[in-house]
Parts: sequence; structure tokens; C-alpha cells
Amino acid sequence: MADAAQKRILVLNGPNLNMLGTREPETYGTMTLQDIEALVRAKADALDASIDWRQSNSEGELVSWIQTAGENADAIILNAAAYTHTSVAIHDAIAAIQIPVVEVHLSNVFAREEFRHHSFISDVAVGVICGFGADGYVLALQAVTSMLPRSV
Amino acid sequence: MADAAQKRILVLNGPNLNMLGTREPETYGTMTLQDIEALVRAKADALDASIDWRQSNSEGELVSWIQTAGENADAIILNAAAYTHTSVAIHDAIAAIQIPVVEVHLSNVFAREEFRHHSFISDVAVGVICGFGADGYVLALQAVTSMLPRSV
Amino acid sequence: MADAAQKRILVLNGPNLNMLGTREPETYGTMTLQDIEALVRAKADALDASIDWRQSNSEGELVSWIQTAGENADAIILNAAAYTHTSVAIHDAIAAIQIPVVEVHLSNVFAREEFRHHSFISDVAVGVICGFGADGYVLALQAVTSMLPRSV
Amino acid sequence: MADAAQKRILVLNGPNLNMLGTREPETYGTMTLQDIEALVRAKADALDASIDWRQSNSEGELVSWIQTAGENADAIILNAAAYTHTSVAIHDAIAAIQIPVVEVHLSNVFAREEFRHHSFISDVAVGVICGFGADGYVLALQAVTSMLPRSV
Amino acid sequence: MADAAQKRILVLNGPNLNMLGTREPETYGTMTLQDIEALVRAKADALDASIDWRQSNSEGELVSWIQTAGENADAIILNAAAYTHTSVAIHDAIAAIQIPVVEVHLSNVFAREEFRHHSFISDVAVGVICGFGADGYVLALQAVTSMLPRSV
Amino acid sequence: MADAAQKRILVLNGPNLNMLGTREPETYGTMTLQDIEALVRAKADALDASIDWRQSNSEGELVSWIQTAGENADAIILNAAAYTHTSVAIHDAIAAIQIPVVEVHLSNVFAREEFRHHSFISDVAVGVICGFGADGYVLALQAVTSMLPRSV
Amino acid sequence: MADAAQKRILVLNGPNLNMLGTREPETYGTMTLQDIEALVRAKADALDASIDWRQSNSEGELVSWIQTAGENADAIILNAAAYTHTSVAIHDAIAAIQIPVVEVHLSNVFAREEFRHHSFISDVAVGVICGFGADGYVLALQAVTSMLPRSV
Amino acid sequence: MADAAQKRILVLNGPNLNMLGTREPETYGTMTLQDIEALVRAKADALDASIDWRQSNSEGELVSWIQTAGENADAIILNAAAYTHTSVAIHDAIAAIQIPVVEVHLSNVFAREEFRHHSFISDVAVGVICGFGADGYVLALQAVTSMLPRSV
Amino acid sequence: MADAAQKRILVLNGPNLNMLGTREPETYGTMTLQDIEALVRAKADALDASIDWRQSNSEGELVSWIQTAGENADAIILNAAAYTHTSVAIHDAIAAIQIPVVEVHLSNVFAREEFRHHSFISDVAVGVICGFGADGYVLALQAVTSMLPRSV
Amino acid sequence: MADAAQKRILVLNGPNLNMLGTREPETYGTMTLQDIEALVRAKADALDASIDWRQSNSEGELVSWIQTAGENADAIILNAAAYTHTSVAIHDAIAAIQIPVVEVHLSNVFAREEFRHHSFISDVAVGVICGFGADGYVLALQAVTSMLPRSV
Amino acid sequence: MADAAQKRILVLNGPNLNMLGTREPETYGTMTLQDIEALVRAKADALDASIDWRQSNSEGELVSWIQTAGENADAIILNAAAYTHTSVAIHDAIAAIQIPVVEVHLSNVFAREEFRHHSFISDVAVGVICGFGADGYVLALQAVTSMLPRSV
Amino acid sequence: MADAAQKRILVLNGPNLNMLGTREPETYGTMTLQDIEALVRAKADALDASIDWRQSNSEGELVSWIQTAGENADAIILNAAAYTHTSVAIHDAIAAIQIPVVEVHLSNVFAREEFRHHSFISDVAVGVICGFGADGYVLALQAVTSMLPRSV
Repeated sequence: MADAAQKRILVLNGPNLNMLGTREPETYGTMTLQDIEALVRAKADALDASIDWRQSNSEGELVSWIQTAGENADAIILNAAAYTHTSVAIHDAIAAIQIPVVEVHLSNVFAREEFRHHSFISDVAVGVICGFGADGYVLALQAVTSMLPRSV
Repeated sequence: MADAAQKRILVLNGPNLNMLGTREPETYGTMTLQDIEALVRAKADALDASIDWRQSNSEGELVSWIQTAGENADAIILNAAAYTHTSVAIHDAIAAIQIPVVEVHLSNVFAREEFRHHSFISDVAVGVICGFGADGYVLALQAVTSMLPRSV
Repeated sequence: MADAAQKRILVLNGPNLNMLGTREPETYGTMTLQDIEALVRAKADALDASIDWRQSNSEGELVSWIQTAGENADAIILNAAAYTHTSVAIHDAIAAIQIPVVEVHLSNVFAREEFRHHSFISDVAVGVICGFGADGYVLALQAVTSMLPRSV
Repeated sequence: MADAAQKRILVLNGPNLNMLGTREPETYGTMTLQDIEALVRAKADALDASIDWRQSNSEGELVSWIQTAGENADAIILNAAAYTHTSVAIHDAIAAIQIPVVEVHLSNVFAREEFRHHSFISDVAVGVICGFGADGYVLALQAVTSMLPRSV
Repeated sequence: MADAAQKRILVLNGPNLNMLGTREPETYGTMTLQDIEALVRAKADALDASIDWRQSNSEGELVSWIQTAGENADAIILNAAAYTHTSVAIHDAIAAIQIPVVEVHLSNVFAREEFRHHSFISDVAVGVICGFGADGYVLALQAVTSMLPRSV
Repeated sequence: MADAAQKRILVLNGPNLNMLGTREPETYGTMTLQDIEALVRAKADALDASIDWRQSNSEGELVSWIQTAGENADAIILNAAAYTHTSVAIHDAIAAIQIPVVEVHLSNVFAREEFRHHSFISDVAVGVICGFGADGYVLALQAVTSMLPRSV
Repeated sequence: MADAAQKRILVLNGPNLNMLGTREPETYGTMTLQDIEALVRAKADALDASIDWRQSNSEGELVSWIQTAGENADAIILNAAAYTHTSVAIHDAIAAIQIPVVEVHLSNVFAREEFRHHSFISDVAVGVICGFGADGYVLALQAVTSMLPRSV
Repeated sequence: MADAAQKRILVLNGPNLNMLGTREPETYGTMTLQDIEALVRAKADALDASIDWRQSNSEGELVSWIQTAGENADAIILNAAAYTHTSVAIHDAIAAIQIPVVEVHLSNVFAREEFRHHSFISDVAVGVICGFGADGYVLALQAVTSMLPRSV
Repeated sequence: MADAAQKRILVLNGPNLNMLGTREPETYGTMTLQDIEALVRAKADALDASIDWRQSNSEGELVSWIQTAGENADAIILNAAAYTHTSVAIHDAIAAIQIPVVEVHLSNVFAREEFRHHSFISDVAVGVICGFGADGYVLALQAVTSMLPRSV
Repeated sequence: MADAAQKRILVLNGPNLNMLGTREPETYGTMTLQDIEALVRAKADALDASIDWRQSNSEGELVSWIQTAGENADAIILNAAAYTHTSVAIHDAIAAIQIPVVEVHLSNVFAREEFRHHSFISDVAVGVICGFGADGYVLALQAVTSMLPRSV
Repeated sequence: MADAAQKRILVLNGPNLNMLGTREPETYGTMTLQDIEALVRAKADALDASIDWRQSNSEGELVSWIQTAGENADAIILNAAAYTHTSVAIHDAIAAIQIPVVEVHLSNVFAREEFRHHSFISDVAVGVICGFGADGYVLALQAVTSMLPRSV
Repeated sequence: MADAAQKRILVLNGPNLNMLGTREPETYGTMTLQDIEALVRAKADALDASIDWRQSNSEGELVSWIQTAGENADAIILNAAAYTHTSVAIHDAIAAIQIPVVEVHLSNVFAREEFRHHSFISDVAVGVICGFGADGYVLALQAVTSMLPRSV
């Protein structure tokens, strides 16, 4: 159970991220999503933060998780993967809540297909980190914890 | 249970509408979705219509509800919210059924971001009502009941 | 003569609406503009509102009527017809006045030619109602009277 | 007064055509609009047709003339000049009437500025004749009289 | 053999015009290309003009015919059909010769598919006539003979 | 009556400029059109110029005024307001006359909506002055009088 | 249970395909999805292949089925219906797996609305078959079985 | 000579398909056009169909072949290669005939250059098969023979 | 040295303006930049303003001059020439300072190439003056001095 | 007959180049295609290269010549003229062969109409030379011979 | 002087970043560039890295610094500010070197003007970090040092 | 020192060309800019021309060099590299001088990224040579010296 004094971070992973490790390793690397989770949890321990880690292939489930995030989390780290480029619903869910959202991508989306250059999330996120692989999650964790007041 | 002589109206609400009241009140007002439902049910009583009121964050669930609407409803009032602008699936579901669909939006979508100016629903809907807040649902109810023959 | 306690509604009809009844009946129906006026006046009586009903083929005349509407009316119902899609002047006239404007279209403009999908009026109107034929005017009347405080 | 057996042709000239002769003679030639009218009337006599010749700088007036053309004319020859490229209202007026409309331009609009390449009239006209100067009106007269049944 | 005093008109017909009569009669009518040729030859006799009538499905052959037209013709009437919309080569051939070219289309191309709205020929032609069916060729013949000085 | 030696300037004001003072004062300021006229007339006296000051909401009337300007004026100062962005007819009227036209806008149109960034007037005007409020008219008056030879 | 020597084909059907038979029969024909399934199973028997037939209205469920297809199938036949045109998530799921995917559409999508002309699936599919109705599935089955080595 | 009871299929191959085998083998494979012809003829024998196999680099020749196909063939299988993307003339030829046309491509055009994503043929073809190499012709043959009534 | 009570105006001239007099005189006239400077200085004397006149071909130098303008100037008159159309850096520099900037162009940029119709400067400038040649600088000087409070 | 040790260069000229000398001399100069051929042959002699010089107005013939070029030539100099801008077939023919192709244009195509700014040839050519008139062919000859190993 | 074992990081700041603290503080915050430098140097000490910190308003100078970075640095952190959106030269400089570049922006560029949404740098950078203010530099420092092997 | 009778050629090289040899050798080859200079100087000697060879990463410096080129040079060979695609300032500088400019690129820019397909230089250059590597400079030298009269 989360320590009341800890910063509670909800990490949401979108469609196909459960395929990491086998999915296009030349683009996404060979780490699995579990490997990344372990990395992030290790860092969270060091930062006295708690992690709620989830993955879904469903746009609607991601929307629902974002809507209720405010109840149990102080911030969201969101890698919406493919939905980044198509989901107005996720855009609206972020706009509907109060806690900060950091957008993360494993790959450098701007060096890939044209349709990955537009994000429906960026303009309602605090900021964007992309291209650093699993390290991007860790950087996002640092960024978001450093901008939060300590919860009590 | 619905009175056999009543006009049966299915009201479908899309993603994030369950957040009304807390979500961007400067855009969407302070009424909750339950408040709007109550308003619509009151009007339905006056018009001798019955209301089946639903909300979902899932595009697929909205599609399924539209597909089977014809079994239990005479018309649909649809506020597809974010999916209005991205869902060909909802467009196709409406085209696949026989009963009329009225498109409703709480806010004046044309006075907002460019990506909200296009709707995949409008061209298969009977008509569009937007910008009147909760009243838009009531207007839609009037519009749709007045265009239906009395069911028997 | 208008009752001082009544809500005074200016209904403006743009170019070619005087042709209703004979003009493309498959799109616009067989009611004449006079038929619609009668329908609206009947509803206005029920709502204790007064109607000032006008039609013009001239963009400039519509602009002038909008400019001076505030002197004798509490709100405008505007079906600018073809000028909806081309008139920045009407856009600016609406922006220049204080009273609310409701945009109405008989047909579902979004199911017609591409050039009818953009409106220069929507973003300065309170809301939009389209696709309900003559009923759209009645809905607009309800919408606009319900949002007005009772004038004295 | 028009002979009852004659074909009655309404010739409508749009904005700035009253300037012909002085206006950009390298583009429009040195004939005045009166010179063209005389040429057309001479041809009309030969074809046993009558001509109702008008010019206006007002979009609304052109719309009104088109709307009522059916009462006194069997066809329209229309040089809408600048309004060709901007007027949905004239487009709609033509669509609202039953008699045929032939679109004429003195200059070859396709060899001029980009904004003159699109016409809101062409798709509701029977056909288009452009680039032949005053002769274009005569050709239009022939075209339109040959497609009309003799009025009685 | 052409009379030396006659105006010599080359009439060029592009791809698929040899299919007239059977090809999409709702768009192109039931006259065959031979029927139209007969109509044009009859008018040419009346105008003391001679006709050189050709059809080709080959862009290159049309280009070659245009290039050498100046040797035996005083003007060209050109219905380039599909090549109208795609052929820079025909555009360049027209620009390379001295005699006038009139562009003709049987159907009103502006009331058809978007890709038929642009012509690579119009800006190097004297003028355009479209939408009048076979009559368009006759009008073009009149237009072009009236603009030619009598050859000797 | 205008002094024969004076430079005669026609100042034309387009739609909604009669609303100045009450219309969107955060954009257009609190001076009325009459206030601006007074300012311009005072400057005209200093420059020994005469002013013919007009306003119209009608595109056609503006066109007609421009057409006949050459009879009584040596130059035009034109604030076509909304018609700036939509009127090919005004563009053509300016191109049809010999006297210079200076385009003026009270607000900085380039810092406003996208649709105000294009002008159909600029390319046939001598020059453009925008963003200086009422001072813009005075600057235009100076600009235009300094480029005119003294009329006799 | 699937014969170990058989080629195992997963057939995925997207949103609204469960409506076949009643949905827009002029576009999609009168066969139900069950009818098509029977047709495909019959052909599969002839080809010694096994069929895993599924339908879903949920983008996320289709994504999940594609992700795990490799475990139980040798190839996928995919009619993603509406999601074809909007789903980057399905695109990414296909890119993440090793087995071949054949894209099928009942109707000729290129003869329909503009928004159906783009597919997010085609560039990661082996090939596309569209316009042949139920036969398209059978053709896809042949295509995909002939490109697979026999599984053991 | 074709058996009167056979279905007669005209297979048309466009520009550069005569280069198959040497042309970009990584895209088009190592089979020659003759190899593909043999494969198709073998299948045709099995289906009791006859094949008229042709190739041309000339757009005009392809147009002519399509125009006259109806005399000797019951259907066309068309791989128009490069002309797929540029030829309105072929589009029009297909629209001008009565027999069905199936569009085939060896490679998956949607996974190649942007300019290969648009086809002028698809919307007048029955359907499209692409990406299956030589097998695509065989699939097309099956598709087209199964949709033909047996000729007598 | 500048008089403490004078209004201090920094006039910045961008690339190629040092070529005036020889550069395309049909577009830019025959005055040199020194001639214009003299004209502006004379006017400045009359208005009790001081002028700091500079020219640079370097985007970076113009940026630096704008950044530090606030130290020694009360306003900027900026003719950024070619950089007007390409420099986000100059846009940002203007946005970063407090003093007003007036945008000037010698030629009427809107009557020239398309790429000169967009300015990255206009939306952060107070206003724009173009098309009046050297007089444009004088008008800008008047405009900017009249909007400044007297410095002390 | 070509010397076995010579480099064999195929020079292909597209549509309307046979018109040189009379065609738009202000754009293309007064040299005929024969004059240019003589110039190139003279240079070829100096470089010990042989020239196979051809011209065609037919896209298909140019395609065929390119396809078979490898048999008798070591390189191609190609001025495809109008087909440069429209021919995917020529693009594909070049991609299908092994020998280098140099693209040449007499005029500076980038200083002409917008539709001449795109070439379907450039990206499969070795390089492009344009704007140098007949000299461009000579430069191309030098370029291409210097990049070839000596044939034996 | 840099310790030989340290990772040497070149931090390049583009135009107007020297204005931080006074420049649009609502967008960029109140820290000066010196404040940020101090923050980064502190972090660098902790990471045993050395910092070479520079700022320039000149595109060319930034290009030159990037070109020679490889001599004295192991990686670059680049905030190219305005040049991000316009500089192909910086894009090419990055592509020309071997060491990794991380793109940083203080503000969330995707929530600002449209012209800030495209970067010429992103596709040649390793990754992008934006929206975290000064912290973004620190995150970039961590990211880049963690991806470098320790230099010796 | 240049021989008075020699043709004096200024060769300008833009940003990153100083990186040749190490920069992306697969695109630009392994010759350094000094190697190319030597090649060009050798050719210049043979042609009795003198070379002034320069390189700059600064847009402003290139502009200044072009402006003053007329004093010491008879022609310019310009490889503006990245500035080719973004610099209106260089475009204007070329337009401002009298001597001819030849545009050169080492690589075939049309076979690379989309943003390299447009040049702001081409339409004011005499001609363009691209894709021939270092040889392109030599070809440009020949082209430009052959078009110059011998200087005295």
C-alpha cells in the first residue's frame, strides 16, 4: 500500500506496449514492458514515490483510468502509443482532470512516419519526452516528482 | 418498464461526459450528467416518452448500443463527444440502422479547436443541435419525438 | 404591437428562403416561408414572445438589420442561408452586437456539398440547429427564449 | 412588348460590366456593355427572340432577378462577373428555378488569376462559354434558344 | 479537296469519343461521333468552311496533329476529352503553334468529378465551350470562323 | 463645395464601421466613425484637400461608389472592412478605375483570425496601412495627397 | 480441434460487420456474416486449413487478438471495417507480429467516400483484396494459404 | 480458338510489365511476364476459361483495347501499372464499357511511394487485388470468372 | 547626441536594402538607402525625434539590435525585407521587448510573389505600412511618434 | 556504325521538341532540334562517344526506347519535356534499367509555371541540368561520359 | 579545464534565450539563462560531467559550433529556439557529426502557435524534451550522460 | 592576381560544405571542399578563368558576398546548400545584381527529403546543375564561362 507521504504516480501504457521486447526491436529495443516497469519502480523507490503501473489496448479504458486518476494519484506518466495520434477522447480526459500529465514515447516519433508527428496529447500535457527508450520513463518520473509538492 | 404507447428514446453519451460538473466548467457548465438526465426525464414525462440513458468511454460499446438500438428504441439522441470527430465506426453504425439519430453537443463546437469542426456523425444524423448546454438535449428530445409517428 | 413584457425575437431569413415551397422541395420541403412564419408565430404566442419576421436577398440589408437589432429585439434567430458560408460581414455584425444569435438551417448542411460545411456565423452564434426543417425555427425560438431573462 | 411566340431571354450582367469600354481594355476590349447589348438584340431579332437586358453591381439584386426570371423569361444568360467566384447565393438561386441558365464570360477566366478558375455557377448552369468577348453572348443566345421549345 | 477561299478547320477528338452513342448515354447523349461530324460538316458548308475531322486515343498522335495543324488548317476545335485534365504535352503543343484553338466539351465538366475541373488546355486556348452536347461543336465552329480573317 | 485647386479624396468605409465606438471596443477603440471623420477633415484642411466621406454595408454600393469615383475624386481611401476578405467585385472595381486607392484598416488584421490575413484589395491598391486606429486614415490621407499632382 | 498439419487462419472482422445482411444491403449485399463464415469454412476444408472466426466492435479487442495471433495462427485475414481508416493501433499491432496479414473489404472502398480511400493497414499488410463481397474472403484464404509453408 | 462455352478473359498489362524478371526484382520478383501468363493460362484451363493476354507501353493502345474488349471478352483483368496513377483516359474507357474490370497489381502499391496510393481505375473497377505477386492474377481470374454467368 | 527630450527611434533595415538605387529599380525605385535616411532624418527634426539608422544582412544581428533596442530607443521602425517572410527569430525578439515596432515595406508586398504575402512580423508589430516607397518610412515615423508619450 | 570502344549515348527528346526553332522562341531560343543534335554530335566526336538521337511525341514510345536502351547504349540523356511532369511510366522505365540517365531541360523549368516544378524523372535520374539551352545537352554529355567506364 | 575522464557536454542556446527572465515571463518563467546555466553546472558536477555553455542569435554561428563540437565534446544539448522551426542548416550540421544531440525546449511548443509544431531538428536528434522549463536542461543532461560511454 | 583578360568566377559555398569528406559520405562522397576547389581551379586554368573560392555558414555573409560580386566577378557559381531551401534573402540578393548565377548541388536534391525539393534560388538563377558531385562544379564553370563575353 502506498505510503501517505509518497508521491503517487500513475503510469499508463497504451496499445501494443505489452508487445515490447518482441515488437520491432530495431525501433523499440529488447526490453520488455516488465523490464521498464522494474527500472521505474527502482527509481521511484529512490525518489520516495509509488508507482501504479498499467497497460491497455483499449482507448476507452485509458480514458477511464485518466478520469479517475485524481483519486489515487498525484500525476500521470502517459505513453499513449498509437492513440497519441488519433485520440481526441484521451485529449479531453486529460483536459478534464487537475493533475499533471507527462507524455512519454520510447522512440523518437519525429524521425518516423508523418502520421506520428502529430499528438492530440501534447497540448494538454505539461511536457513531452521522447526518443530515450526506457530512460524516458525515468526522466518523466523525475520531472513529474520534482514539479509536485510533497503530498501529505 | 416502458409503456407500449410511449416513444422510446435511447440517449447515448460518449467519453468524458461522465466528468461533467467537474470537467472544464467554463466550457461545459456545472451541471452533472445526472442533472441533465433528470432534466431530460422530466421533459420525457411531459411528452409521454421513455428514456434509456447511457454513457460510455468505449467507442466499441457505443457502436454496439447503436447497432441494437432498433430493438428497444424508436430514436437515438447521441452526444458522441470526442468520438464525434474521429469515429468512422460510429458513422457506419448509424448508417446501418433504420431509426433516426439526432446529434447533440453541449458546447458550440464551432467556436472551439479546429479539430472539433468536423463530425463523422452529422452527415448520417437527421440534424444537429449544439451550443445550448443541457437544453440541447431537451430540444433534441422535442425534435425527435415530433418527427416520430406514435409507436403502438 | 409588442407587449412590453414579451421577449422580442427578430427572425432573419437570408437569400432564396423566399423561394421555399417551390425551391428544391426534395431538400427544403414543401412549406413556404409564410407557412414557417405562421408556425413560429403560433409558438411565440404560446411562449409570450413577439416575432419580427424578415427576409432579404441582400447581404448588406441583413448586416444592417443585425446591427440595429438591439434596439427592438432581445435575440435573433438567423438563417443566413447562402451567406452563412461566405459572409464575413454578417460575422462581424453579430460580433458587434450584445444580444444572442441562434443559427438555424432547414436542411442538414453537413450532409450536402463541401462548401456548406463551413459557417462564418457559428463561432459568433450561441448555438446551431440544423436539419429539422421548419421545426428548427421552433426549437430555436424555445432555446433563445429560455436563455433570455424576461424583459420588462 | 415581347411577342407571345418569341423565346424570352433574360440577360443578366454582374458587377463592373457597366464599366466595359473603359475598364482594362487589354482584357475586356473596347466595346461598351451597350455595344454588346445591341449586338445581342440584333441576333435576337434574327432568332425571333426577345431580350430583357440588365446589369447590377448588387449580389442581392442579381439573386432576386434570377428568382423571378421564370415569370417572364424562358432562359437566362448570366455573366455574373466577380460574383461568379464568390456567390453561393447566386448558385442557390439558379438551383431554385426551373429555366436553363447559360454562364458567359467575356475573357478566358482560366488564363487569368487563380481565384477566377473556380465558379459557383458552373455546376448549376447548363453550360459555360468563355473567352470569346462579345461573341460569347451571341453564342450563348444561339445555344439557349436552340435548346428551348418554342414558347406559345 | 478544300476550296482555297474556305476557312479550314481541324477538329480533333480525344480518347473514348469514338465510343459516343454507347458510352454513358446519360452523360454524353445518344449521338455518335459520326452524327456530330455530320452536324458540324453541315454547318461548315453554310459558313463556307472546310472540316478536317479526326479522333485518336493516343496523346502523342493528338500532339503531332496539333503541331502540324498550321500547314493545312486555320484553326483547331479541340475536344481533348480525358487528356484535357492530364496532358502537359497537349498544352505545350498548343503553345507552340500560331493558329487559334477552341476547347470544347460535350458535358458540363464542372458538374462532374473534381478531377475534371482542371484543364491543361484552357489557358492556351482562345476560349472554352462546354455543356451543350453536339451543339458545342457548332458553336465553336461559329466562334472560330468569325474570329478568322478569310483565307485566300 | 470643393475648391477647384484642392485634392479631392473619397473615403469609403465598409460594413459595420458605422458601429464603431460600441463595436468590440477592445479591438476597434472607442472613437465613433464620426470622430474619425472629424479627425480626417481637420487634417484635410491642413493639407488643402477636400473629403467625401461615406459608409455602406452593401458590397454593391461600395462597388458603384468606386466605379464613379473618378468623376469627383482624385484618390480613394478605402477601409472595406469585412468585404476586404471576400469581395472580388471590389477588387475588379478598383482595377477598372485610374485613380489610386489606399487600403486602410483600424486594427492589425494580421494579428487576428486567419481569414482576415488575405485581402482581395491589396494587390490592386497602391499600398496598405493597418493597425494604427484612426491615425491610419490620417496617414493614408498624407500618403495619398503626397503622391497626387495638384489638381487644377 | 485444429489438425496439427493444417494451416491455421485467424479471420478478424471489425465493427458493424455483425450487421451484415441488414446493413445497407445495396452496398454490402444480403449475406450475413454467418453466411460468409460458412463459405470460408467450406473453402478451408477444401484447402485443409482451419478457421478461427471472430468479430468485434472494439478497436482494443482487435488489437489484442492480432497481438496473440502468432500463438495459434499461421496467418490473419483482416477486415477491419471502419477501423481501417482510423486505427494506428491496429497498424502497430500488425507491425509487431511476424505472421502475414491480408486486408479484405467487402465493398470497393475506392468507389465510396473520400475518407475510406486511406487505410492504416495496407502498408503493413501483405496485400489487399476489395470489392468482391464474400468472395473476397475466399480469395484471401487462397492467397494466404498458398504463401504459407505447410505447418507441422 | 476460344471455345464458345468458355468465359473469355482479356488480360491487359501496362507499361514496363514487359520488363518483369529483370526490373527491380526486390519489388516485382523474378518471374517474367511470360511466366505469369503461363500460370494464368494453366488456371484458366482448370476453370474452362480462355485468355487473351496483351501488354503495351502505350496509354492509347490500352484505351483502344479496353474499348473493344466487349466484342471478344466477357471480362478484363487489368494491371495498368504506371498508368493506374495518371490515366483519366483509361478511367473513361472502363466507364464506357459494360463488362467487369478487375484491377490487379503485383506489388502492394500502398506500401510504396505516395504517388502510387491513388488509382484512377479503382472507382470504375469491380474490385482491386494487390500485393500477391503473380498469384494476384490467378485470384483475379477466379474472382472474375465466378462473377460471370457462363457465356453461351 | 540625442536630446533627452526627444523621442528616440531605431530604424532597422534588413538584407539587400543596402542595394537600393541599383536593385530592381522598377520595384524599389531609384532612391538609395542613404536618400531615404536623409528624408527620415529631416522629418525627425521636424518632429523633434532622433534617429538611429542601421542596416544588416544578418538575421542574427537584426535580432540582437531588436533585443537591446529598449536601452536606447523608444520605438522601432523595422523593414526586415526578406527576413520578414522567414524569420521566427525576429518574431520572437519583437515579442521579447516592450517598445512598439512598426513594420514597413517599400513595395506593396501583396502585389508580388506568393511567398511575400506572409509575414512573421506583422502579428507582433503595432501595425504595417507598405507600398508607399520611401514615404512609408516617414509615415511610420509619424505613426510611431504620435503613439509615444514624450520621453524625458 | 558505332566504334566498339566508344561510349554509346542514347539521347531521347520528348514531345514538342521537334518544334524547336519556331516554338516560343523567347523561351526556347531559335536553334532547331537538328542544330542541337549537330552540336552534340560534334562534342561526341571530341569525346570519342557515339550518339543515338531520337525524338518522339509518344509517352509509350519513349518508355519502350528507355527499356531497350541497355542493349545498345551505355547511358541516356533524357529531355522528356512535358512528360517530365506527368509520366509515372517513364519514371518506372528508368527505374527498371541499369544504365545511368541524365535529365536535361533547355529552359529553367523552375522559373516557369508551377506545374513544371515537379519532375517524375529527377529522383531516378543521376542528376539534372536545366536552363542552359542547347549547352545543357553538351554538359550532360560530358557529365555522363565522365562517369562511365570506357566500354570495350 | 575539463577533467579527461569527464563527459564533456556542449550546451547550445539559440536566439532570444539571452532575453530569459525579462522575455514573456508567462511563457518562459523568470529564471535567466545564467540561472539555468548554474542549475545545469551543479547537476554536471554531480554527474562528473563538464559543461561548455554558449548562446548565439546567429544561425551560422550555431551551425559552426555544432560542426566543431566533436573535437571538444561528447554530446550536445541544443535549444535552438526559433531556428528549430526554420533552419535546414542546423539540421544538416547535426546530420554531419557523429556525437548525439538532445533537443530541449523550455516551453511546451506543441501548446503554442502552429509554426512551432514543426522542428527541423527532431528527426536528427536522439530525442526531445520540452515543457519542463529549466528542468528540461537537467533532464537532457541526465539523458545524454547516461547514453554516453565514459570518455577516457 | 587575376589576369585582366580572364573571366572571373566567384564560387560560393554555403553551410556545412566545409564538412565535406566527413559529412554523410554516402550522400556527399569522400572529397573535401579543398579537393573540389583544386578540381575547379585546374579546369579554370584550362579555360583561362580565375576563381574566387569561398565558404560560409552565415546566410548574411553569403548575401553580402553576392551583393558585391559584381565588382570583382563576372559570374557566380552558387551552392547555397541548406539555405537553398529557406533563404528569401539570397533570392533577393541574386535578383539585385546583374551578373549571372548558376545553382549547383553535389547530391541529387530531388531524390532526397521533400523539403529539399524547393529552391528559393532556382527561379533567379540562369540554370541548375545537381547530382553530379564535384563534377557539377566543373560543369557549372564551363556553362558559365561559355555564356560570358570575354572580359577585357
